[in-house]
This record gives sequence, C-alpha cells and structure tokens, in this order.
Amino acid sequence: MDRAPSVFSVLTLSGSLRQASSNRALLQAAASLAPPQMQFRHYAQWGALPAFNPDDEGREVASVLHFRAAVKAADAVLIASPEYAHGVPGAFKNALDWLVGSGEFINKPVAAINASSRAVHAQTSLLDTLAMMNADVVAAASLTVALPTNQLDTAAILAHTTVVASLQQVLAGLYGHLLKVPQAAHN
Amino acid sequence: MDRAPSVFSVLTLSGSLRQASSNRALLQAAASLAPPQMQFRHYAQWGALPAFNPDDEGREVASVLHFRAAVKAADAVLIASPEYAHGVPGAFKNALDWLVGSGEFINKPVAAINASSRAVHAQTSLLDTLAMMNADVVAAASLTVALPTNQLDTAAILAHTTVVASLQQVLAGLYGHLLKVPQAAHN
Repeated sequence: MDRAPSVFSVLTLSGSLRQASSNRALLQAAASLAPPQMQFRHYAQWGALPAFNPDDEGREVASVLHFRAAVKAADAVLIASPEYAHGVPGAFKNALDWLVGSGEFINKPVAAINASSRAVHAQTSLLDTLAMMNADVVAAASLTVALPTNQLDTAAILAHTTVVASLQQVLAGLYGHLLKVPQAAHN
Repeated sequence: MDRAPSVFSVLTLSGSLRQASSNRALLQAAASLAPPQMQFRHYAQWGALPAFNPDDEGREVASVLHFRAAVKAADAVLIASPEYAHGVPGAFKNALDWLVGSGEFINKPVAAINASSRAVHAQTSLLDTLAMMNADVVAAASLTVALPTNQLDTAAILAHTTVVASLQQVLAGLYGHLLKVPQAAHN
C-alpha cells in the first residue's frame, strides 16, 4: 500500500552517544507521543562515521553514504543534542559536516530540541549551522524541553506532564510545518 | 642534556585534515619561523579518534590515550582551524571533547589562529570552548592570520611579508606568555 501523502517520515538524531542519554530518551518519548501521520525512525549509526576530510569527498566510505541516504529519505529530521564544553558535541557536528557538500539538508525541514536549559550555547550554534546548511529550520519545533534531572528514562519522561506538553508542542510545530511544505519536496 | 628551562614545547593542531590545508601550512610556517626556544611538534593523528562517548570514559582506546599524553607533555598548544558550516570542524571539536573530562587543557597555554578572516564564527566558538575547558587561552597569540588565497603552501606563506609579520606576532605573544607562566606549570 502506498503511503498516504499526509504521512511523514521523521528521522531522529541524538547528539549524544550515551546509552542512557537524556536527549535519546526525549526522542523516544517524542516518537511514542507522535500521531500516526508521523513515522519516527531513529538513526544511531552516525557515531561510526569517520572524521570529515574534504579530500575524501567523492570516495566516501559506506557509513557516510548510508547516513546521507537515511537523511535524504526522511521528510524531516528531529535532533536532540546536549552541549559539550559550550559547543555542539564534536562527533555530532562531524556527522553534519558530511552533509554540507552533498546537500541532504538543503530545504529539509529540521528541528532541534534539547533536554537542558543550560545548553544554550550548543542550541544557538546548532541552529546557526543548520541555517548555514540551508536546512528549512522549523523554529516552532525547536524548543528546549528542560528535564528536571538528567536521570529520566523514556517512561519517566512520559509521566511528566509539563515535559509531555512541551513535546506535544514540538510535534505539533513540526507536523504543522510539514503540512505546509510543498508536495514536491516530499519523497 | 636537560632541556634549558627557557625552551618550550609547542604542540600544533590543525583543525582541517586536508592534505593541502591552509591552516596546516600556516602552522608549518609558524614552526619554521619559531625561535630555538620554541620546539614545535605537529600532531595530525587526532583524525583517527573515535566519536566521544561519555560511556567510554575509563576504557579509552589507545588513540585517545596517545592524544591526551601528547597534549599533556606540551608546554603549549597552538591550534589553526578552519570554519565548517559556521562552526568548528566537528571532528576537531570531537578531539577536544576527549580532553574535557581528563583535563589536559586545564591551565594549559593554548592559542588559536586561523587562515581566513571569514572564519569568525568558528574562531569565537573555539575560544569559548577553550575557556570553558579552563585552558589558559593566550589572547595575544590568538589572531586571524588572513591568507590572500587558500592556495598558498608553506613556502608561499613564508614569502608573504604581512603574513610572516602576523605569524611573528603570534610567536612573540605565545613565547612572551610562556615566559610568564609559573615554572611549576612546566613539565
């Protein structure tokens, strides 16, 4: 059966590779709250990408091609990233660097959330990078969803009413944006 | 023979892994202009570091330990980094992320230069990250050494009088700072 035109695929990327990452748990919570019109898929394999080297463009290894294809196939990307030393986690920025020349983020609806109100440097820097990459940054869905502690798993997040309300705002913002994106931009 | 107390080791790090990197060439030019009291060593192997994962702290692979030891052994670090998508190259930031918990940059004299006057976002972000890591950021040596084109190799850089003057300013700023660092901080 063909996918109905109003169903959108959302690729989620956690900027942290930690097993018990709050940002990863936030994305899992978002996925479980999402309406059936949004199909979530998590992509954790970016941690295996090599260091970006412009000399390697045109002879990329399989992990790079796999990552690019996953981003390209998605209708939207939802990022949740922590802050490391006042910046975007380097390894996650490295994954983004691999998309600059190949252009998978150009006009791609992308939202960025994070789990800590203290992560303002990384959030600002990430949104600036996304804009520089010509992503279609979804401001209405790019919120800080501050968790009361960084010890919450997905179930605990889903039991927290204010956090759930924030995540629903993210989902509504992203879905509302996707409905407005010209049909031609869909895959 | 013991090293004279007024000789300092400077570890250089290029934020770009490109073979013909302007920032790498700038560091080579700086090394060749350096007085004998500054012993330069270039560290290119950071490109092989794995993606930083807090879960791996305490069971780091050999490349991480090697990088940390090289930084620890140096009296100062001189970075030259380009800008990718309005940010620090992710892979290079990833290398720095590996030093946050282990603390090799704490009180370490570190200067950051770059080869392009357009790299202001990355330069600002990098200096902010270095300060957050409690590095002893050497402002007098953290300059933009704008190259007229990005096609210059080390020999061409050394033939360019204004660039050479800027590099000498970097070296003088770093050396002057090192002379003021308490003896106890030396290795």
